Amino acid sequence: MSDRFLRACRREPVDCTPVWFMRQAGRYLAEYQEIRAGHSILEVCKTPELAVEVTLQPIRRFDLDAAIIFADILLPLEPMGLSLEFAAGEGPVIANPIRTAGDVAALGAVRPDADLGFVLESIRQARAALAGEVPLIGFAGAPFTLASYAIEGGGSRNYIETKRLMYRDPDAWHDLMGRLSDAVADFLAAQVAAGAQAVQLFDSWVGALSPDDYAEYASPYSQRIFSALAELGVPRIHFGTGANTLLPLMAAAGCDVIGLDWRIPLDEGWAAAGRDLAVQGNLDPVALFAPEQEIERRVLDIVKRADARPGHIFNLGHGILPETPPEAVGFVADLVHRATRRTG
Amino acid sequence: MSDRFLRACRREPVDCTPVWFMRQAGRYLAEYQEIRAGHSILEVCKTPELAVEVTLQPIRRFDLDAAIIFADILLPLEPMGLSLEFAAGEGPVIANPIRTAGDVAALGAVRPDADLGFVLESIRQARAALAGEVPLIGFAGAPFTLASYAIEGGGSRNYIETKRLMYRDPDAWHDLMGRLSDAVADFLAAQVAAGAQAVQLFDSWVGALSPDDYAEYASPYSQRIFSALAELGVPRIHFGTGANTLLPLMAAAGCDVIGLDWRIPLDEGWAAAGRDLAVQGNLDPVALFAPEQEIERRVLDIVKRADARPGHIFNLGHGILPETPPEAVGFVADLVHRATRRTG
Repeated sequence: MSDRFLRACRREPVDCTPVWFMRQAGRYLAEYQEIRAGHSILEVCKTPELAVEVTLQPIRRFDLDAAIIFADILLPLEPMGLSLEFAAGEGPVIANPIRTAGDVAALGAVRPDADLGFVLESIRQARAALAGEVPLIGFAGAPFTLASYAIEGGGSRNYIETKRLMYRDPDAWHDLMGRLSDAVADFLAAQVAAGAQAVQLFDSWVGALSPDDYAEYASPYSQRIFSALAELGVPRIHFGTGANTLLPLMAAAGCDVIGLDWRIPLDEGWAAAGRDLAVQGNLDPVALFAPEQEIERRVLDIVKRADARPGHIFNLGHGILPETPPEAVGFVADLVHRATRRTG
Repeated sequence: MSDRFLRACRREPVDCTPVWFMRQAGRYLAEYQEIRAGHSILEVCKTPELAVEVTLQPIRRFDLDAAIIFADILLPLEPMGLSLEFAAGEGPVIANPIRTAGDVAALGAVRPDADLGFVLESIRQARAALAGEVPLIGFAGAPFTLASYAIEGGGSRNYIETKRLMYRDPDAWHDLMGRLSDAVADFLAAQVAAGAQAVQLFDSWVGALSPDDYAEYASPYSQRIFSALAELGVPRIHFGTGANTLLPLMAAAGCDVIGLDWRIPLDEGWAAAGRDLAVQGNLDPVALFAPEQEIERRVLDIVKRADARPGHIFNLGHGILPETPPEAVGFVADLVHRATRRTG
């Protein structure tokens, strides 16, 4: 049984640096592809036995220090009234995106037990199946990233519609963000009640914003979520990509652990976020396509930059890509453990 | 006749801050759409009278302080042996992308006069047509960004193939980058000889790299280009997006002006790149979709952060988006001039 991950989140000493990977349950694993051959992403999310199975797959295969429940950040948008589909190979598509104040006003509230009970049940079953072997992480999308999908109707390159609403109808924007942050705060609290031992807030696309826009239009809502979670006593991880100029603001939103992408050296990112936080990261996901010797050089550089300070959780700078060779994942996990083992 | 732009590039005092816009000749203009209704992008690039016409369109419509020759950064890839097409609404597609050392070895050299003479002729004609009214900027893609298109076969989200070549066959990578930097250096020198009064190197996608990878795999080649251009005496602008953690390294590559995206406040970006450079930027292109009052607030914030120091060229943080309302472009140009007019 490994409590390295939770200890590192609290910046307590550990026997060696804990490792997990964003999207460690996913398409790069043949056993996941087998499940998906018969079921859509949404079916897997909504069927606890399947969600638990794919949650456990990477834990069985690799020496990882945390499991993360299999789910999707967009799930809370469905009970709010948005129609969510995953087009083959194209990512999420929302057929009725939000464009007006009226669209925002028409959104429903999310009742986690009634609307997202399948995620909570998956968490309960995954906790039981893990039997304390490694902790289980719950997660949700941050309000900005959820809003960007809800407004654009899917992924986006330039976030024109998102920013148009933000700039042209700030009242509608703030209404939407308030609703999303309420939904996410309740959902994460319910995940903790169901057994999640840490939570990660994914603000994956927040790097599209300038620091001023982040401070005005996004950060207050992430802050509201972290604040609501504070009393639950579980570590709160805050993650964005392409967001290195936002790190001090993201840290100030109230998390315990800051996630870094690979665009900033770990020590510099840690210093920018603040040494009073733990830090998670930050190998380039594409480094897993390199030869082992080159992967090793990069992993050891990150370990060196962490400088054996308490509070480093090894991870990638973004999720594992579907084309990733699975053996690279195991290689990195073992290497991090070996290279950081504290003696005596 | 305005020499504000060239003076600001040299950090000399100006009567007011010069303004131009990346992609100021483009799809947001009805008169450009009219030309494109009958001609592909490549036809416009390769027909000097058309290229000159679209180069001049924004100069006629708005009070801009520089023209930029209409061309595409990928043009040098064709004479190297890559097949370039622009699929409708999908961006560039290269049918025979580079994947191996053999592919790299088979690439041809670029002879600017023989292979890209149409761009040089467009520059000569545009200079004549501008008659000194505003200076003319030439440009090229930086080796990393060109390599990413050549290897991926088009735009990319994760640059897996690019980094795979970089990490798994560094000799082939360095061979490719050497060839691209030779081609770009020669092409830009020929543009200057044809009349370009400043040059911009677009490393639009370099933000995909970590600082260490940039230093090892990309920066030496951009440096080679800037070094070759140094003796020509024209200002050299260096531009990337999502690259704020690379700014000190990009500045060190040897440019005169550093281009900033909107993800960093102008004063902080200028300080990171170094006060011995001029700076260009950095309004979010999507801010042009905001109401005028909101655009004004953002423009004035940038002006304030420039603090009337010599060496600020106002621009966007990336190119004008096709959906942009043209009146916003004129509004910003006039506002910048008005707000920065030096009295006495």
